[in-house]
Amino acid sequence: MLTGGDPSSGDQPVKRVQKNPRAEIVSIGEELLGEGLRGGNAEYLAGRLSRLGFRVRVKTTVGDDLDEIGAVLTRAVEKMDCVIATGGLGPTGDDQTLEAVTLAFQAPLRHSESIYRRLLGKRQGGRPVMARALRRQSRIPDGFVPLPNPHGTAPGLIRKGKEGILVLLPGVPQEMKGIFEASVHSRLARSFPALRPNRSRVLKIVGVPEPRIDRLAIQAFRAEGQGIPTVLAGCGCVEVHLGQKGRAATRRIEIRMRGKLGIAVYGVDDDTLAEVVGRLLRQGRQSLAVAESCTGGMLGEMITSVPGASRYFFGGVIAYGKRAKLEMLTIREDDLRRHGAVSSRLAAAMAKQSRLRFSASLGLGITGIAGPGGGSRRHPLGEVFIGLSWKEGARAVRYRFRGAREPIRRRACVAALDLVRRRLILHPGKG
Amino acid sequence: MLTGGDPSSGDQPVKRVQKNPRAEIVSIGEELLGEGLRGGNAEYLAGRLSRLGFRVRVKTTVGDDLDEIGAVLTRAVEKMDCVIATGGLGPTGDDQTLEAVTLAFQAPLRHSESIYRRLLGKRQGGRPVMARALRRQSRIPDGFVPLPNPHGTAPGLIRKGKEGILVLLPGVPQEMKGIFEASVHSRLARSFPALRPNRSRVLKIVGVPEPRIDRLAIQAFRAEGQGIPTVLAGCGCVEVHLGQKGRAATRRIEIRMRGKLGIAVYGVDDDTLAEVVGRLLRQGRQSLAVAESCTGGMLGEMITSVPGASRYFFGGVIAYGKRAKLEMLTIREDDLRRHGAVSSRLAAAMAKQSRLRFSASLGLGITGIAGPGGGSRRHPLGEVFIGLSWKEGARAVRYRFRGAREPIRRRACVAALDLVRRRLILHPGKG
Repeated sequence: MLTGGDPSSGDQPVKRVQKNPRAEIVSIGEELLGEGLRGGNAEYLAGRLSRLGFRVRVKTTVGDDLDEIGAVLTRAVEKMDCVIATGGLGPTGDDQTLEAVTLAFQAPLRHSESIYRRLLGKRQGGRPVMARALRRQSRIPDGFVPLPNPHGTAPGLIRKGKEGILVLLPGVPQEMKGIFEASVHSRLARSFPALRPNRSRVLKIVGVPEPRIDRLAIQAFRAEGQGIPTVLAGCGCVEVHLGQKGRAATRRIEIRMRGKLGIAVYGVDDDTLAEVVGRLLRQGRQSLAVAESCTGGMLGEMITSVPGASRYFFGGVIAYGKRAKLEMLTIREDDLRRHGAVSSRLAAAMAKQSRLRFSASLGLGITGIAGPGGGSRRHPLGEVFIGLSWKEGARAVRYRFRGAREPIRRRACVAALDLVRRRLILHPGKG
Repeated sequence: MLTGGDPSSGDQPVKRVQKNPRAEIVSIGEELLGEGLRGGNAEYLAGRLSRLGFRVRVKTTVGDDLDEIGAVLTRAVEKMDCVIATGGLGPTGDDQTLEAVTLAFQAPLRHSESIYRRLLGKRQGGRPVMARALRRQSRIPDGFVPLPNPHGTAPGLIRKGKEGILVLLPGVPQEMKGIFEASVHSRLARSFPALRPNRSRVLKIVGVPEPRIDRLAIQAFRAEGQGIPTVLAGCGCVEVHLGQKGRAATRRIEIRMRGKLGIAVYGVDDDTLAEVVGRLLRQGRQSLAVAESCTGGMLGEMITSVPGASRYFFGGVIAYGKRAKLEMLTIREDDLRRHGAVSSRLAAAMAKQSRLRFSASLGLGITGIAGPGGGSRRHPLGEVFIGLSWKEGARAVRYRFRGAREPIRRRACVAALDLVRRRLILHPGKG
């Protein structure tokens, strides 16, 4: 448990010699216990803390329950060097974090007139000041130091004890990030001067089945006397975490993996496939247009998730209905009738027409059965044809993706981007 | 701690009288501690358990660490009536769950020849049998009963003690779900016969600022003597959890909220905005086409995430570049020059042209500044114009969204769908 935190002794190191101190992230809020994927606060903090050099060991989510919050925070502070909790600092009655801290750490709440004044000032000119809510948010538990909230009212709170640091942040992502970046990050770095940035080298791979990558990674790690690799897969892309950046063993593992995987390695670390394709298009002075049937716009959305995509992405047609295929893409009715809407012929035609219509140098076409209905013996669920067209030629590839509607659509988009990527690498400078 | 679980006494109630027993979900895996939003196992199980009638009180994520897994499971089993852990049951060395359970619960692993035989049988006809890996997965900790895995090798495990239930499931979502649905769900229902299905009524709202909904919900809850409402917001849509379905107070809260919010309530429970719009289009025998600039395909993707959308969604143009706007949408160059690419004029023209081009009865157009660059004094970041066109008329609305690129794009799509929804409700039967 945190004992005798001295809020005034701001910057002294908490633990002088420790490398890679242990951290826990606690997310507080009844709504986080439901079934939807909510928040993302814990993921954000996990990324920031592990880059700083902390080892994030546990993430805990707990409801707005006084006892439960207290129990979780007490246990976390006992075991960890750094605990960051988000949520439950708001002005309403279901925000219980302060009360829980008061009880668990015998830290009575005291009113801070300076915080109250600052909050009053912030609200002036806005709607009628809710004095009671602001009073609630002006209370500081004994031993904690307030951290200003650039995007809201509830201040963050930090307490440094002999055994570690406890930080309380609001649950609103923008406010949480604002306080973390402005006040917490630098304090952690100062409190743990032995922290060594802990960035794992990540290899990003596309177009190779996951079990094969698994086996290659295990072999490469074994050859270097390393443990078991972390291999993460998601809708056609796989990432292998190679170990601490800059270490010789990590470099040798990377070389070995690249030797086996070749062009299937599309990037490293934070690269996304859409960014890599965008970079290749810019470098090769190429441009892209798309025609999407079963993906309904998802490919365009992925491409344009990259800021500045307008330099190489000209546009697309969502050819969802038959009429759209016929008219917007001037595809001949008897082609459509003879080969069917799900065919390599149609995918190639869609690719070509999108290229011509948008005056791009490359065109992509996607058509397939994303389900859940619509599959048949001849065209099973998950069958997708992707066409790529360039000035002198075209190709179309048949895929069979597994999973539900959304994964099938996402895998199709990833495969389409990968077709472009491979062409740009193997035939640079050719439209 | 679990004591003296008797695996043979399969179906006797664990706690006879308890209503709404408490549950914890533990996710095990080093990769889950990273920064990406991974998995979703915990969210799936939270949904299933809370519908069954459990109160999910804590979700914990822990790495592949023997001590940590043991400590978390021991604590969880002590405090909860039901603990479900996923992950760490695979055949590789970083899968530590069984060893942790053995140590924490003094439950030595014993080899199960029947499981081994079944796994061997599964693998026949496949690749060379990895006997060692299968042997690893054929070990059962004392006191646990294996649960068959319809989609993989590692069996699930369940232990019923006097104090509650502990379930171990693999981390692969498909395998986890398969075992849960086939074996765990029914066992939980039998073990806790007093369980009462626990479905909260959820009101879904669009187009009203969250603070206003917050205030209305607090007033409505207070009028019924209920506690604090759970209000969740995400990119323009807000959901209010009204309380246990079917209760009179919940119904009265809903009536009160609907009285204040009117048409802003777009659905209940699992409804999505795209589904609701699809339903209205079908009912009104209407059809939709879109033209997207800054959203780059996201609107089409949202609309076509609904299976069967081809009945009412004809297609769209991703008019990302200037040329696309001019040619694919036959927008006049001097219109574009005079009013600019980000203007209500252009949004209305895009809407109209998409409607005409795809022969739909309604057309939507979106153009704006999604950032991070591109904002100016005249057209600030987050400014988005959305046009809606129908046979006899059109309207265009200016929005100013806050946040980063992705939230701005998502809010724009939500606002566009809401424009269609409101028109279809207020002017039914008119294209």
